[in-house]
Amino acid sequence: MAILHIAGLSGSLREKSYNTGLLRAAQRYGAEHDMEIEMIEIGSLPLFSEDGESPLPAAVVAFKEKIATADGVLFVTPEYNYSISGSLKNAIEWGTRPYGNNSFNDKPAGIMSVSVGILGGVRAQYHLRQILVSPNMHVMNYPEVMVGQAKEKFNEAGELVDEPTQKRVKEFLAAFAEWVKKFQ
Amino acid sequence: MAILHIAGLSGSLREKSYNTGLLRAAQRYGAEHDMEIEMIEIGSLPLFSEDGESPLPAAVVAFKEKIATADGVLFVTPEYNYSISGSLKNAIEWGTRPYGNNSFNDKPAGIMSVSVGILGGVRAQYHLRQILVSPNMHVMNYPEVMVGQAKEKFNEAGELVDEPTQKRVKEFLAAFAEWVKKFQ
Amino acid sequence: MAILHIAGLSGSLREKSYNTGLLRAAQRYGAEHDMEIEMIEIGSLPLFSEDGESPLPAAVVAFKEKIATADGVLFVTPEYNYSISGSLKNAIEWGTRPYGNNSFNDKPAGIMSVSVGILGGVRAQYHLRQILVSPNMHVMNYPEVMVGQAKEKFNEAGELVDEPTQKRVKEFLAAFAEWVKKFQ
Amino acid sequence: MAILHIAGLSGSLREKSYNTGLLRAAQRYGAEHDMEIEMIEIGSLPLFSEDGESPLPAAVVAFKEKIATADGVLFVTPEYNYSISGSLKNAIEWGTRPYGNNSFNDKPAGIMSVSVGILGGVRAQYHLRQILVSPNMHVMNYPEVMVGQAKEKFNEAGELVDEPTQKRVKEFLAAFAEWVKKFQ
Repeated sequence: MAILHIAGLSGSLREKSYNTGLLRAAQRYGAEHDMEIEMIEIGSLPLFSEDGESPLPAAVVAFKEKIATADGVLFVTPEYNYSISGSLKNAIEWGTRPYGNNSFNDKPAGIMSVSVGILGGVRAQYHLRQILVSPNMHVMNYPEVMVGQAKEKFNEAGELVDEPTQKRVKEFLAAFAEWVKKFQ
Repeated sequence: MAILHIAGLSGSLREKSYNTGLLRAAQRYGAEHDMEIEMIEIGSLPLFSEDGESPLPAAVVAFKEKIATADGVLFVTPEYNYSISGSLKNAIEWGTRPYGNNSFNDKPAGIMSVSVGILGGVRAQYHLRQILVSPNMHVMNYPEVMVGQAKEKFNEAGELVDEPTQKRVKEFLAAFAEWVKKFQ
Repeated sequence: MAILHIAGLSGSLREKSYNTGLLRAAQRYGAEHDMEIEMIEIGSLPLFSEDGESPLPAAVVAFKEKIATADGVLFVTPEYNYSISGSLKNAIEWGTRPYGNNSFNDKPAGIMSVSVGILGGVRAQYHLRQILVSPNMHVMNYPEVMVGQAKEKFNEAGELVDEPTQKRVKEFLAAFAEWVKKFQ
Repeated sequence: MAILHIAGLSGSLREKSYNTGLLRAAQRYGAEHDMEIEMIEIGSLPLFSEDGESPLPAAVVAFKEKIATADGVLFVTPEYNYSISGSLKNAIEWGTRPYGNNSFNDKPAGIMSVSVGILGGVRAQYHLRQILVSPNMHVMNYPEVMVGQAKEKFNEAGELVDEPTQKRVKEFLAAFAEWVKKFQ
């Protein structure tokens, strides 16, 4: 059985980010589902501008290469001001640019989100779904993973310690592996 | 008649940006409607992270001060990947942070958008409306200014030269002045 | 102090609807905030069609008259399939038609929602906010009332019995009264 | 080559509806792409209420049966008040109810829209995309068909007569046939 290569993007740049912690948990569980999830760093990308496209900055080239060679993309996003983070949106812009060089094209995608409040980042998820139509990504519907009340589910180091959420992430990954295979 | 002080934000960092050109046009016409529109630069803000909040970077402090002292905010946004730009989203995040220090709170807002295609940035406008509920901004409804087919309406330097659009912007500003006064 | 006349619309047609129960609670508390909330029935409106506009059905005429004479509109919506109910959307269509006869025009609005699940109808609220830009309604931002886990907060008859939620509704109404006055 | 059976839903109830006209055009062209598109009537469905679920009305049973046996669903929606029509939303609710009887489950979907204005119904399309996540439908991304300025593209009888749009619909159907096959 071939290993699926998944690019994992966390939309939070905080060192002890719950979102990054959720992605690390997914990374650990990935092997059970024939997935290798690589964490792709987005915090060193410059703010997108068409004026900065020629030549592409080295960090952008490296970022796009990792996306382009992945079998699928796993987004883990915080909800900032009722949407995804600017840093994640910025990374998506670079991923689809310059014109004609859309690294995300036709790839399957999965979305998880985390918030400190009860709603689990749901508003960010639906903005991200609309955004991902643009680069022609195919986003899995279910199971939805929206982790609310993060302070009760992660430890101080940002590691996921809540067992029901761990189980939920594993169910998500099992479904995601099937979803990714459908688009190969 | 007191002058209304408006903070103007363009979501595009391109030097010859049509969006910035539309904002400059609004700036020129503002005086007719008792408005002074100051263009607030967002391209030098770092990518938002909670880890970067203490101390706040000087560029962020200056940005927040300009927002906090304005009577209203005028957003001009491109549509990148069916939403607002990451750089504009990033600026909004800094404007509402750190927790308890929301520079946008309770201010009236207006939105215009420009696109090269026919749709004029409509998808970005409705994402921005959802986002601006979060910092408790009051966004004017009408007239809506969504400028499509920008290449026919701006010259090479990025200046608005299309007369019907110029007229539309003036109508927008007349309504916006009334809207801002309602919240003073 | 003049009484504010508020049109109250529940988006659920179920007899023991939690949403209707929340609206009834608001109705009871309204007097404390100088508001008289009238419950406007939407279940007997026909499905909207332009072919059915001339003449307008009597139920539509009566519905539009109640909206047109109100100082503001309070929407209480369930979330069906990640949006507002079709019956509420249908009522909004009649309210804005025929062309040139928009009964909602320029009125202040408030939104509350209820769901059995934990998310409290948040997805419906943001669809409704976009919808209400169209008839030029001015929707209050805060406090947001999204009542999740309804089975624990309403009794079998559909009456709101949860004290923290009752308090929240009262806070909402206090803010809504101020919001409505701003647009008089 | 097996024929794909597609359920076609028009969100407009007007007899000479442009949306229904676009669906009829798709129906005519479908055979070239091994698709048989059946037009499913939604105007006689009652307004949804859980109280009306037992027993299900005969019109609802018939509607759900047609959806359940289709290989895919083609939605053609007008934009009313910046969203889909209440009548289409109402039909989707019946299609997913009662609980546990989701006739749309796991089916591929396509979306087209028509408007008299220039924007072609884009706001309705993105609301519909969010709505269709709920019943676990898989919506094709491209090509997007948003037909603006309908009065120039349909004749008085509501038939599509604009050749570039006819070509666009054929391209849509070619891609949709492939999309539907992916989910069989």
